Amino acid sequence: MSTPKLSVQLNCPLPKLDFDVITLGHGSGGVLTHRLLDTGVFSMLKNDLLNEQHDGAVVTFDGPVAFTTDSYVVTPIFFPGGNIGELAVNGSINDLAMCGAIPKYLSLSFILEEGLRMDEFWEVLLGIKKTSEEAGVPIVTGDTKVVERGKGDKVFINTTGLGRIHPKASIHANRVKDGDVILISGTVANHGVAILSVRQGLEFETTITSDTRPLHQPVLKLLDELGNAVKFLRDPTRGGVATVLNELAAQSGTGIEIFQRDIPISEQVEGACEMLGLDPLYVANEGIFITAVSPEKADNALNILQSFDSAAAILGRVVAEHPKQVILHSRIGGRRIVSMLPGEQLPRIC
Amino acid sequence: MSTPKLSVQLNCPLPKLDFDVITLGHGSGGVLTHRLLDTGVFSMLKNDLLNEQHDGAVVTFDGPVAFTTDSYVVTPIFFPGGNIGELAVNGSINDLAMCGAIPKYLSLSFILEEGLRMDEFWEVLLGIKKTSEEAGVPIVTGDTKVVERGKGDKVFINTTGLGRIHPKASIHANRVKDGDVILISGTVANHGVAILSVRQGLEFETTITSDTRPLHQPVLKLLDELGNAVKFLRDPTRGGVATVLNELAAQSGTGIEIFQRDIPISEQVEGACEMLGLDPLYVANEGIFITAVSPEKADNALNILQSFDSAAAILGRVVAEHPKQVILHSRIGGRRIVSMLPGEQLPRIC
Repeated sequence: MSTPKLSVQLNCPLPKLDFDVITLGHGSGGVLTHRLLDTGVFSMLKNDLLNEQHDGAVVTFDGPVAFTTDSYVVTPIFFPGGNIGELAVNGSINDLAMCGAIPKYLSLSFILEEGLRMDEFWEVLLGIKKTSEEAGVPIVTGDTKVVERGKGDKVFINTTGLGRIHPKASIHANRVKDGDVILISGTVANHGVAILSVRQGLEFETTITSDTRPLHQPVLKLLDELGNAVKFLRDPTRGGVATVLNELAAQSGTGIEIFQRDIPISEQVEGACEMLGLDPLYVANEGIFITAVSPEKADNALNILQSFDSAAAILGRVVAEHPKQVILHSRIGGRRIVSMLPGEQLPRIC
Repeated sequence: MSTPKLSVQLNCPLPKLDFDVITLGHGSGGVLTHRLLDTGVFSMLKNDLLNEQHDGAVVTFDGPVAFTTDSYVVTPIFFPGGNIGELAVNGSINDLAMCGAIPKYLSLSFILEEGLRMDEFWEVLLGIKKTSEEAGVPIVTGDTKVVERGKGDKVFINTTGLGRIHPKASIHANRVKDGDVILISGTVANHGVAILSVRQGLEFETTITSDTRPLHQPVLKLLDELGNAVKFLRDPTRGGVATVLNELAAQSGTGIEIFQRDIPISEQVEGACEMLGLDPLYVANEGIFITAVSPEKADNALNILQSFDSAAAILGRVVAEHPKQVILHSRIGGRRIVSMLPGEQLPRIC
């Protein structure tokens, strides 16, 4: 992996930390930890809550609160279209959105490997800052640990999110029933293929980039306009579209039918999947979601989703037949069962 | 490390998972992940919120909420007096307590190393179950990732906590002033010495055990009885007592004086520290905290703390002299500056 280029405009100069790499002392809780935080992390991510520098932040809510957690272990940590920091912020924002919540606050916890280059750490932190600021969801509390060389893999990140449940949201798989329409918000398999293209031993030339992005805007627009006609929201990350549809079928007890010709996929990604022998339905995504809505609101939902991403499409429908099974109608008229991802397809994808 | 003994009574039988070890597939998000969760994790940690199995949990609060996060990377994962799972639950409960909050909910996120023995994972999970149930603080949402062998170290855990701020709490270092009294809730350095005693290359015979335990009961009692006379609360984990006192001095702008003869320490721990050349003020703790209270309430505070742990003591006082410095009065009458932990003393202690 070559040196990452600083692709983000710094609001503050790269701090002088007397070290070119992360050392075990940066995780000791003592002077080095304080220096790393005070001269670097806090000034970069600054906001009133974080500045308290207590063991935790104090936040307020009125009404119910969504609470989600995710650890990010993607390898490599820099990939076409993003880095692990951006992924971690977008990922927890999206988990909140999938609960029907308005994302409000994030926590941020690092597990760094001794010897991580300081400029790589800084590039990850810049990705976090930029993504968090653009989405308007501040980091309000955090933690940093360091493990010995060979006991980690550069950077692992946990982000945990808090959001206010949208007043019109009623997102429960068991509300989904026969006749409901399933939509997808953009093209599939971009993230997984982008990661694979830079995996050691597999590098291939492509302009495919990860679709990592926050999804709360289209979700909140759906909830604003369609209210409880929106019954299910989930982003098909690990396990891909096939796994999410199987989760929906299992949790709602319904059958699901999808049509291969309606699955939005870019030509390049489809070509790469063919070359690698991957079924795009099992490849991880980051910046898309699947929703199930009442049939009478399907067109409105499609219009809203297409106003954010023209590739959004109706993917299929919920049926009374074959409960708990997902059936794919192929382009040539055949039918097959789509099962959940059986083993490991692409480990460490997020 | 020998096989850990199952030290906890199982409420459910050890599930049959068809695998003796964790594989990459258990982190794929597909069938193996679902089987690990459905047949094991969910049934062990079950509660209504977790059972929703969504991307997040929905919780409600009235009033301000404390939000804390911590990742746990302690090595070895089993140590005298506990394991990484118990540490992770107690740690986040204690971070909440140190904010003056009543702990309510935890999230739980695993980063597992491929090849981790399933019975070791189960033992950690049992520690989590037991600690969470005893403290009355449920795990309501979670995540599981798996990294390749050699890219992690058995188990890393992130716990993130939510608590309701105690109505009488007003915990801010900048409220601490000249004359306030500093107390400590139990003996120092137990955790660090217990971990060291089982570190590879250093094993020594001892009956010293980690003091990992939840601290919310004594903290809430202090707040119930003394209200805003309690100005500062912090648990001296990484960096030890010396680092916390320096943080207090720096954040309050006051001086601090402590007396060596008043530092509670067990004979065994003191002996081990001498043998290892460690200053107990810099050794990590888990089950104790430091508080600063108004002088007129110091005796009440001591009584309350001693009702939970007879080793609790008045450690020192806040003074107008030498602002931002911590001075130790030694047993033989000398004075020295106690600085913050300068580098790494004991990495991977929590």
